[in-house]
Amino acid sequence: MPVETIRWTGRSVRIIDQAQLPAKLVYLDCRDVDTLWHAIKALKVRGAPALGIAAAFGVILGVQTFKGKDIRAFIRFVGKLCDHIGTSRPTAVNLFHALGQMRLLAQKNPHLSVDALKAVLFSEALTIYEEDLMVCRAVGRNGAKLIRNGDTLMTICNAGGLATGDYGTALGVVYAAKEAGKKFKVYALETRPLLQGARLTAWELKKNRIDVTLVCDNMAAAVMKDGRVDIVLTGADRIAANGDAANKVGTYMLAVLARHHGIPFYIAAPRTTFDFKTRTGAGIPIEERSADEVRKFAGRLTAPKDVKVFNPAFDVTPHALISGFVTEYGIIRKPYGRNILQMGLRSSLRDVG
Amino acid sequence: MPVETIRWTGRSVRIIDQAQLPAKLVYLDCRDVDTLWHAIKALKVRGAPALGIAAAFGVILGVQTFKGKDIRAFIRFVGKLCDHIGTSRPTAVNLFHALGQMRLLAQKNPHLSVDALKAVLFSEALTIYEEDLMVCRAVGRNGAKLIRNGDTLMTICNAGGLATGDYGTALGVVYAAKEAGKKFKVYALETRPLLQGARLTAWELKKNRIDVTLVCDNMAAAVMKDGRVDIVLTGADRIAANGDAANKVGTYMLAVLARHHGIPFYIAAPRTTFDFKTRTGAGIPIEERSADEVRKFAGRLTAPKDVKVFNPAFDVTPHALISGFVTEYGIIRKPYGRNILQMGLRSSLRDVG
Repeated sequence: MPVETIRWTGRSVRIIDQAQLPAKLVYLDCRDVDTLWHAIKALKVRGAPALGIAAAFGVILGVQTFKGKDIRAFIRFVGKLCDHIGTSRPTAVNLFHALGQMRLLAQKNPHLSVDALKAVLFSEALTIYEEDLMVCRAVGRNGAKLIRNGDTLMTICNAGGLATGDYGTALGVVYAAKEAGKKFKVYALETRPLLQGARLTAWELKKNRIDVTLVCDNMAAAVMKDGRVDIVLTGADRIAANGDAANKVGTYMLAVLARHHGIPFYIAAPRTTFDFKTRTGAGIPIEERSADEVRKFAGRLTAPKDVKVFNPAFDVTPHALISGFVTEYGIIRKPYGRNILQMGLRSSLRDVG
Repeated sequence: MPVETIRWTGRSVRIIDQAQLPAKLVYLDCRDVDTLWHAIKALKVRGAPALGIAAAFGVILGVQTFKGKDIRAFIRFVGKLCDHIGTSRPTAVNLFHALGQMRLLAQKNPHLSVDALKAVLFSEALTIYEEDLMVCRAVGRNGAKLIRNGDTLMTICNAGGLATGDYGTALGVVYAAKEAGKKFKVYALETRPLLQGARLTAWELKKNRIDVTLVCDNMAAAVMKDGRVDIVLTGADRIAANGDAANKVGTYMLAVLARHHGIPFYIAAPRTTFDFKTRTGAGIPIEERSADEVRKFAGRLTAPKDVKVFNPAFDVTPHALISGFVTEYGIIRKPYGRNILQMGLRSSLRDVG
């Protein structure tokens, strides 16, 4: 199994500094919100589900600095803290989902003492973390049915253990298929500009003895044309109520290429990645990142220093190109509007409030 | 205009060392075949038309070392020299076309003295070079008609001045459109793994004051989805008789994406890029390059050091996805089989022999 990506040590949020992989496996202890905020911003911790956990743990770090006894002041403090943590990455809905849970829990408990509410928030953060471990295994089990013996998969970015607590969503499916004794191969797209596929996915698949081949993003079509791909499987950062899905830029490319080659295209994501309030993909904000991520590599300029750059971190795949969503509740198929809503209603039975 | 990519100095083949762009503009004087062979292999000089010129100049360098007077031995020497130069890059047909011309010229002139044949070969190499300058300008003029005021173009790799003697094929179209007073924008794909788009295309377009925006290869689909692309224009390394076209890996991806989005997809290439002897794309050998081109960057490991890699330098775009070929004879449209053959017959009137 992959190493633990994130955990609460009792005093800090300990994360793997993913910016240093695969050269070095370095852990970073975030002892305050500011360190964690910058770690999220700099993608030291990344992946939609892991960001949900990180955000919840961030609230735990933050509330420790509140020293008063006034519960209303404390609840306002929690609200501002959640707003602040939410500014680190605008696209990942899991982050807002976790922050929303923490915020709501505070607002619903004005009758508690500050210390008691801190304990409730602490327990909720741990629950978010533990649920991720279970949810990813359920996603994996449900998705493993899609993988046949001898198949070749293709994936982009890292929807692996490193994107979650420890098991992964799209790669959770891969791990579960392996645990079920299936033999298969994986093509990992390197995923420019930050090479999460080369640095993280190739690293964790090799670590778990999965047969992985690394290709550049622009080679995906050529690999499909050769008839080498049976299924494309990615994660998502936010899925609208109609099934339009935002994920790492290049995912939409894969979906179009898969359709052209008659290859099924699935997205593996937990219920927390679905954003029921956003009706279509047009409503999902797309984070644009620094031009130097594209112009430079490891500090070295690889393009004219002042060339214009367009660097969206995500793109949106229209639901029509998606064969299904692998969730902890099973595989959601078309029509998505109805079936996604149904999952939302089912899951809301256990939500806070 | 772009700087001269390659020229004969009287004693050496002087090339821009493109591996060092955009950081430094460094010229490399190749005084022997070996230096030139390695410069081709290491992509210090690259681009199908430039490789044709380099190969012809390579023959000139090589024959200078032949000291005998036996014309038959000399002709055999030229044949072996051409074979050797041809081993540097297997896909670019212009290289073989130029070598074929030089070889044939030698074989057809056994009545000449060695010195006279050297002079004939020298003159032929200069003709190949000078024709490139004219041909690229004709390609540019013919293609400029496709560009409307306000258009946005997309291209991959470098089919620019740096891929030819000085003007380019796909970028020759861009330069000719600019000379005709049109205003337009260009999206340049960075082109992994060797970043010819970021290093070379962005560099030469900026130098020529063209409005260029750099994107990663995996962003092309997202840019098209936003409705930002009016035409895709690339070069080619070899075009089969039926119109199937080999070009930098990622070109096939662009063709599929363009089709999905209803965007015309054109290839700009001189007649020498057409390989009339190869009937379909299936007959074009695809060069596979070193895994470390993908695993490392600037000497630094960016993936697990022993991860498997698939690194094809080219892919083949089926003719059905191509809207037309911009050549020095005009734009070739469907049906390609007949119309490509017609161009071949027309052009053969001036060929050697």
